[in-house]
Amino acid sequence: MIATEKITVAHGNGGTQMQELLRRVVWPRLGNAILAEETDAAVLPAPAGATLVFTTDSFVVQPLFFPGGDIGHLAVCGTINDVAMMGAQPAALALALILEAGLPMATLERIVDSIAATARAANVPVVTGDTKVVEAGKADGIYITTSGVGWRTGTAPTGWRSVQAGDAILVSGTLGHHGIAVMAARAHLPFMSTLQSDAAPLHELVREIVAVDDGVRWLRDPTRGGLAAALNELAGQVGGAIELDDAAIPVAEDVRGAAEVLGLDPLYLANEGRCVVVCAAAAADAVLARMRRHALGRTAARIGTVSAVGGRGSVVIATSFGGRRIVDMPSGEQLPRIC
Amino acid sequence: MIATEKITVAHGNGGTQMQELLRRVVWPRLGNAILAEETDAAVLPAPAGATLVFTTDSFVVQPLFFPGGDIGHLAVCGTINDVAMMGAQPAALALALILEAGLPMATLERIVDSIAATARAANVPVVTGDTKVVEAGKADGIYITTSGVGWRTGTAPTGWRSVQAGDAILVSGTLGHHGIAVMAARAHLPFMSTLQSDAAPLHELVREIVAVDDGVRWLRDPTRGGLAAALNELAGQVGGAIELDDAAIPVAEDVRGAAEVLGLDPLYLANEGRCVVVCAAAAADAVLARMRRHALGRTAARIGTVSAVGGRGSVVIATSFGGRRIVDMPSGEQLPRIC
Repeated sequence: MIATEKITVAHGNGGTQMQELLRRVVWPRLGNAILAEETDAAVLPAPAGATLVFTTDSFVVQPLFFPGGDIGHLAVCGTINDVAMMGAQPAALALALILEAGLPMATLERIVDSIAATARAANVPVVTGDTKVVEAGKADGIYITTSGVGWRTGTAPTGWRSVQAGDAILVSGTLGHHGIAVMAARAHLPFMSTLQSDAAPLHELVREIVAVDDGVRWLRDPTRGGLAAALNELAGQVGGAIELDDAAIPVAEDVRGAAEVLGLDPLYLANEGRCVVVCAAAAADAVLARMRRHALGRTAARIGTVSAVGGRGSVVIATSFGGRRIVDMPSGEQLPRIC
Repeated sequence: MIATEKITVAHGNGGTQMQELLRRVVWPRLGNAILAEETDAAVLPAPAGATLVFTTDSFVVQPLFFPGGDIGHLAVCGTINDVAMMGAQPAALALALILEAGLPMATLERIVDSIAATARAANVPVVTGDTKVVEAGKADGIYITTSGVGWRTGTAPTGWRSVQAGDAILVSGTLGHHGIAVMAARAHLPFMSTLQSDAAPLHELVREIVAVDDGVRWLRDPTRGGLAAALNELAGQVGGAIELDDAAIPVAEDVRGAAEVLGLDPLYLANEGRCVVVCAAAAADAVLARMRRHALGRTAARIGTVSAVGGRGSVVIATSFGGRRIVDMPSGEQLPRIC
């Protein structure tokens, strides 16, 4: 690579320059037999008796690199997690890049390296993709849309329709690291530089969670809008009265401190390495134990209860001072471009 | 809708405003039972014995609306076609929107209407999606990434590895309407205003093409870079000497005239409603007949031959004046933002 090389509009032409970009920069890094076919779509075997899970997500995070991750790592984790939250195991990813003319080639290489490393570690190959180039000034360097397919077999949570009064609410670990790391990077706050995004692929943790058919109802990764948005959405869907115990919600000290400085509530911070689980109360201890045995679930905790369903949805938190307050759906422009 | 309403950064917050946007503007238009589950991923049945086909494409076309189509219609057609070119029937689409703050709500509604109408007519539902918002000045109003899944059963072309010396090259109809319509709209050339994009979903035409197992080898939709790029890519893959007959290549008079004025070669114009077929020479007449019976294949034609494989890939055209010239892979910035 020439150190000063940059993406140009010609790299999006469907011709020589695009082929060269793909063959030199993208495909070797992501390399696998399906991608090597150079077709416009990937052909994949379908396991007998499985159900297909299909998802897509665009990533426009700013800055592109932040402590603990980058847009490429985040895109792979986010799409794997959306498949995993349906109780499925991801099988393959599709990668659509919108590049801004002027993007340094070295930056693209670094991002594709990160995509490749994350996909390889998760054992979920990128099997197809697309590349477009827009003029300088558009697209903030790069936007990434990752789509995913996966297979659901055997036991899997049946989703929000199965949530019942009395169910327990668990989280797989401390909340807010991803959101606060991106915000701190954007605000150039050096004293927060130890904060790291904890974005991670959760499909192996989910495999443990759903391994036993003991009453896991619903899984969700609390991304944009954080735990507050995820639980408000669930409350709205099931008409559920959700009660949280503030003291039980795991938030690391450094996240709590940084959130205070930035005037943010950790319940609203985006995560990409955590999941929320609703399960039968009787199964809560067993599910917690399964989560804690996994590296990504060491700090898992039971944080609340669905006290009723079929009514008016609400999320209420009992504070350490004995009070109660409503946890609203996030509103307004808080924390844009976090994923 | 309030006539002056615009997309704001808050519509991408994962909270109240985003839910409201989805529930009021997006989901009712695309409405189907799977989308109504409001989960982060769609769950789809997998037909027994079928192979999965999976694809993604970003669309950054400018202008957003052009004669004969718009970015939404194009996105649905493009992704359906990428699935179809593997000899598969599309089953479902995922829709990822990157919206620019300031985009008039009426523009978004018009685009989602177009997506919905195209998907409904093609009988391929949008089953999952994602919405992000970036600041004003980015994203040219809207970028769309559509992904698709489909199923391949029974007979299907085996792809470029099966292409043999002597095979016939067919196209499903006149070339260049899509590319020239977008270029004319961008250049504000009023005398070309009769030119219409012919973007269309090709899966039903493809079903006819592959209905008989009589030697169909390879299918491709000649999008960016046109017929020239598609055949140069094939020539490179199979080491094929491809010979085209200029007089046989169907180009409508209005496209030919407009291309001349704009200094463009119709072989390089993007298409999204056409496909190129390579088949055994003995099957060419039968495949042509099957194509011509379909509304989207009326002007199908046999345009050339793969005269050799396993050598140095080349695409050569015999001109009407008795000469021969090389059709190169497109190079440089020609026709950016065409899809």
